[in-house]
Amino acid sequence: MMPFSHQIRVTYGDTDQMGVVYHANYLNYFEISRTEMMRSQGLTYRALEAAGVLLQVVHCELDFHHPAHYDDLLEVRSVVSQLGKASLVISSEVRRGEERLVTGKVKLAAVSRQQGRIIPLPPQLTDAIRQFCAPTNSGG
Amino acid sequence: MMPFSHQIRVTYGDTDQMGVVYHANYLNYFEISRTEMMRSQGLTYRALEAAGVLLQVVHCELDFHHPAHYDDLLEVRSVVSQLGKASLVISSEVRRGEERLVTGKVKLAAVSRQQGRIIPLPPQLTDAIRQFCAPTNSGG
Amino acid sequence: MMPFSHQIRVTYGDTDQMGVVYHANYLNYFEISRTEMMRSQGLTYRALEAAGVLLQVVHCELDFHHPAHYDDLLEVRSVVSQLGKASLVISSEVRRGEERLVTGKVKLAAVSRQQGRIIPLPPQLTDAIRQFCAPTNSGG
Amino acid sequence: MMPFSHQIRVTYGDTDQMGVVYHANYLNYFEISRTEMMRSQGLTYRALEAAGVLLQVVHCELDFHHPAHYDDLLEVRSVVSQLGKASLVISSEVRRGEERLVTGKVKLAAVSRQQGRIIPLPPQLTDAIRQFCAPTNSGG
Repeated sequence: MMPFSHQIRVTYGDTDQMGVVYHANYLNYFEISRTEMMRSQGLTYRALEAAGVLLQVVHCELDFHHPAHYDDLLEVRSVVSQLGKASLVISSEVRRGEERLVTGKVKLAAVSRQQGRIIPLPPQLTDAIRQFCAPTNSGG
Repeated sequence: MMPFSHQIRVTYGDTDQMGVVYHANYLNYFEISRTEMMRSQGLTYRALEAAGVLLQVVHCELDFHHPAHYDDLLEVRSVVSQLGKASLVISSEVRRGEERLVTGKVKLAAVSRQQGRIIPLPPQLTDAIRQFCAPTNSGG
Repeated sequence: MMPFSHQIRVTYGDTDQMGVVYHANYLNYFEISRTEMMRSQGLTYRALEAAGVLLQVVHCELDFHHPAHYDDLLEVRSVVSQLGKASLVISSEVRRGEERLVTGKVKLAAVSRQQGRIIPLPPQLTDAIRQFCAPTNSGG
Repeated sequence: MMPFSHQIRVTYGDTDQMGVVYHANYLNYFEISRTEMMRSQGLTYRALEAAGVLLQVVHCELDFHHPAHYDDLLEVRSVVSQLGKASLVISSEVRRGEERLVTGKVKLAAVSRQQGRIIPLPPQLTDAIRQFCAPTNSGG
């Protein structure tokens, strides 16, 4: 199992007056990375929404080890660390070269766009992300 | 005619590594101010949308004279500088005390939420904002 | 012990195409609330920074129970749930009336602006926030 | 003269509840594009700042013709439409395929990081962007 890797360039607007990336922006980096994870397997989140499935963030947590700076080219490495019936957890780390800057995870629940109710993860999603599932959870 | 005045506190996330408010954020300040302008007259933009009317930004321009800093308590003064059949222009200045930091204007067009077509400004909107119309345009 | 309470109005820019507040923005709401918590006791975070003390976010976690919508007037209730030598944890809940929408906590570490090193929380900070410390931690 | 072209993928966080890109975010797209314009010629804005030169946005204007949507792959085409002694104007259009969505321009002034004073554009900057200067201004 290989983590999915995606590169993100820090923009000026991402920084704050400490001269580092404002902490909330890492959630945007995670969102971009999971979108690209799906796309890498031929699935767009846009198509998923069009098919009536929303993925809502229900939990997230982040640890900030070292700051990222303007114009850094960051690598976000992500695995699917839990794959449930109606939800999944994606664990990510943000790196600058060999240095680990931020680690975190985001739990997403599948929700019907029409009724707003929790629904099973659609097969096209589980198929797309299966190869990024961490071993201990691949049977879960 | 008195301009509408609204106070906005600069947050940490609004700043960038120059130690000033990132320029794009003034458009958010203008958006907040025009929402509060309507609310001051008993109209919420939310209700307008629920009634099927969207106000889309079709043009904006800003001049940046002096930077605003973290935790500044800014005053946004706004007037309706043009009131057309299907659009309006709101001109604003952002002040810190007597100092004028940013000036700008935003043109908004009324659009039907259903068909996405330009529609006349609804009477409840023009009534609400009439008192903030700059003299030269009050008859326009 | 009373939690600190602060009201925040959801702006248009805070929403995403699901029609709800984009999840990352709650971290901004928390930032605004802790700034106002300090200010309520006569301490500005700006003054703290000017005195050479940065408060860096080292950890955060959030649970999203129900979505907030555009123009909602939210209440953020916060307590200091841990007060250490060089760090503190602020636990918050975001409410809309009686409904609890989001809960979360943010851990902040005091860092010297000059050397970038962890330093003890300055007395003016611990004094300012002491009254918002949750009972079980007031002696910690 | 060829305009500089840069592609930008619309993120979920860029959208608002109208289901389109929130207007303020185009200023971020412009910022990203001009950074990449410089980088394409071997100059990083980061290096420019390290050398003591800030480029401050002093004016901007945008026209919104058609909305962009989540996950759209946009192309931002930019030219240097004015090149002065201490400032420059970059004119851009945001396209989705052949469709022109947004046009705009941003005026930037060179400022000394130390004294905060207007300074001449540094030669490494003018050299880097010269090839993107629109003909009528190349001699200006």
